[in-house]
Amino acid sequence: MADDRPKPFRRSRAVAPSSQVELNRRQFLRGGAAAAGGILAAGGVPNAIAAGRAENLPPNVPPWSKFLGASVDAHPYGMPSPHEKEVVRRSVEWLTATRESSINFTPLYALDGIVVPNGLCFERHHGGAPEIPPEDHRLMVHGLVDDALIFTMNDLMAFPPESRFYFLECAANGGMEWRGAQLNGCQYTHGMVHCVQYTGVPLKTVLQECGVKPKGKWLLVEGADSAGMTRSIPIDKAMEDCFLAYSMNGERLRTEQGYPLRLLVPGWEGNMWVKWLRRIEVGDQPWYHREETSKYTDLLEDGKAREFTWVMDAKSVITNPSPEMPMRRKGRQVLKGLAWSGRGAIKRVDISMDGGRNWKTARLDNPVLAKCLTRFYFEWDWNGETVYLQSRAMDEFGYVQPQVQDLTKVRGVNSVYHNNGIQTWLINPTGEVENVRLG
Amino acid sequence: MADDRPKPFRRSRAVAPSSQVELNRRQFLRGGAAAAGGILAAGGVPNAIAAGRAENLPPNVPPWSKFLGASVDAHPYGMPSPHEKEVVRRSVEWLTATRESSINFTPLYALDGIVVPNGLCFERHHGGAPEIPPEDHRLMVHGLVDDALIFTMNDLMAFPPESRFYFLECAANGGMEWRGAQLNGCQYTHGMVHCVQYTGVPLKTVLQECGVKPKGKWLLVEGADSAGMTRSIPIDKAMEDCFLAYSMNGERLRTEQGYPLRLLVPGWEGNMWVKWLRRIEVGDQPWYHREETSKYTDLLEDGKAREFTWVMDAKSVITNPSPEMPMRRKGRQVLKGLAWSGRGAIKRVDISMDGGRNWKTARLDNPVLAKCLTRFYFEWDWNGETVYLQSRAMDEFGYVQPQVQDLTKVRGVNSVYHNNGIQTWLINPTGEVENVRLG
Repeated sequence: MADDRPKPFRRSRAVAPSSQVELNRRQFLRGGAAAAGGILAAGGVPNAIAAGRAENLPPNVPPWSKFLGASVDAHPYGMPSPHEKEVVRRSVEWLTATRESSINFTPLYALDGIVVPNGLCFERHHGGAPEIPPEDHRLMVHGLVDDALIFTMNDLMAFPPESRFYFLECAANGGMEWRGAQLNGCQYTHGMVHCVQYTGVPLKTVLQECGVKPKGKWLLVEGADSAGMTRSIPIDKAMEDCFLAYSMNGERLRTEQGYPLRLLVPGWEGNMWVKWLRRIEVGDQPWYHREETSKYTDLLEDGKAREFTWVMDAKSVITNPSPEMPMRRKGRQVLKGLAWSGRGAIKRVDISMDGGRNWKTARLDNPVLAKCLTRFYFEWDWNGETVYLQSRAMDEFGYVQPQVQDLTKVRGVNSVYHNNGIQTWLINPTGEVENVRLG
Repeated sequence: MADDRPKPFRRSRAVAPSSQVELNRRQFLRGGAAAAGGILAAGGVPNAIAAGRAENLPPNVPPWSKFLGASVDAHPYGMPSPHEKEVVRRSVEWLTATRESSINFTPLYALDGIVVPNGLCFERHHGGAPEIPPEDHRLMVHGLVDDALIFTMNDLMAFPPESRFYFLECAANGGMEWRGAQLNGCQYTHGMVHCVQYTGVPLKTVLQECGVKPKGKWLLVEGADSAGMTRSIPIDKAMEDCFLAYSMNGERLRTEQGYPLRLLVPGWEGNMWVKWLRRIEVGDQPWYHREETSKYTDLLEDGKAREFTWVMDAKSVITNPSPEMPMRRKGRQVLKGLAWSGRGAIKRVDISMDGGRNWKTARLDNPVLAKCLTRFYFEWDWNGETVYLQSRAMDEFGYVQPQVQDLTKVRGVNSVYHNNGIQTWLINPTGEVENVRLG
């Protein structure tokens, strides 16, 4: 077991930057090569202090200080550094029958903070992502309303707007892990979640404009994609915090996230956040459409299925270390992860190094917002021992993320959706990190 | 003058979506064409209700519902919809001598919320943007310290991280407007500002690791670009909230924002936020380098110059309407803008329709954070009258953004930097919006 007494960071004395130019340049480049990439040194993880001596040489004037860089015309819409080209959404070929009705995953292992850049937000489509001219898009609200109305995007943008940070998680996130550890990487085990600042209009505002009749207790929401995605939503949720979003992270929605209009159903499963939203029908009972009967229900051991399991319960994942982010040094370091709860704010995250026997409390980073990703950190030492690493999220209502064995006792292993069991990463003495199932 | 009594939104009754297919498709397309683009109708701004009848036709099954859309393999790193291709950074050709020592501007008029997407954050370089391999980058801390140390990026990432939302404004934002209204667009008048969530390490942590000697009162910070950008920073500010950032909006810094390491100097002029940070020297007095003497000082009427004018005082701009976002309809609508203060949080924003004689209070959107952009809205009616539109920001310390004529009384018109005067937009009866100077 690692202890968590603070240890000194590795350090080396600097010499004057003007001296030893040739020697330093050679060593500088050698040091750089040793530090590059995520490849583990042969014979195990380098000792921090020893590695520090080779790497931490004085920076003389580097080559990029000697020539003009890129002009301000280079990228009217900027892209990440070429050195970050591996940080992309990735998919799993065998997972779905077609590439249009499929999934890709957010590279959680490479991210910081709580904002996910729009270009890295995971995708889940049922008929591909349509490209809709915003001036031709319409939203119709009809059924049990006083006035059935049709709104252009300009109409919707004339309502009083608001901005809100929310996480969005696919109900199937972790769905391949019910019967055991399958996928080696937190991008795949947990990457069907993202978090952005949305701007738009509360759904309540638009429903009140139409006037919902007293008998109107349910909504059917429908997308304009070729899947014609539909879901039933209770009116109380619609009036509480559902939201019509047209922007994410400051700019208009991305095509694959529902441009020009998406319904947000904060804290509830992503399938209900209908993209390319074109129609809202108000009715007096749920519709029991495909995506809430044969799909997005949870098959139990006795053959019965749970239905309308909307809320995404508290969950967390350690993103670094993870299979994609092996241990690169011994000694003091920082563990990073993400926690979220569809019921409200994260209250606490605990870390275990021994598969759940002992726990220590992680540090939560600001801001901590309801129904939003929360970033946590844990400073610790690692000296090459085997670690069974876990994180456990608790939300403001006292809900505690369960161990997988406790979850499967209740739910069995037939489910696809709503797997919020505690993840275990096995850290090997080599520094490699594996997805494992305990107990 | 517009009043602000609520008026009904335009509306039209929906017909059943299955009926009138041919008629509706024709009218649908005609309506779409009329609504497209930002071009004003000949003969002035359409009346909202009349335009509504043509535009608000029922959405029958649109063409994009009939074919599969893009697959999840289309964009490993996603980009905006092609319909948003005009939302880009833009520069002004005549403004600077070279394209490497130049500026481009954030398209504020098109943005929502407070997060600016990384691809749209304005750029200001003095020798172009260098592409630095992160494994070869070093930060040296030396001078009046107990231990002169050199840090690799991995060293810095092993310190306890934090995330923070901050605005970053170039001191020269609005610098072309001192002698009168010059540029017709809020992208150019105010677009040298952006706001993201940064992740990194407090500078205090790193300085404490090195041990600053009692005589150490100033820092010299230096970039690794070919401009060798340097600035002097007082130690109190460094210890208060300066920050070494390696990520922005969840992913690693963009090249043009200082990849792999940037200094943040929250609330202070952007020139001090040294990009590609390679060196911090601790000294006992300021260095009086070029960028704090011949540049980044403020020439007054009497020939003297203000120096070390670091703080960005409270400022605001209405982004919609603006020259790029003319009035598109009469009747009820929402005005949008941004406010910020380098001293702390925005307390209030007021709106005037008559060039500053009468004021009404705008609505601030959540979150309201210190040294961060704050989004404001104002719901109003416009019936085709001439409007002299202004916004006025107040911060938590009682500082009130000044009228331009009050600012120039004190500062004259020779400055380049620190123009935080109130912006006036003239709304013409045609709906066009102009940048004008009053008084």
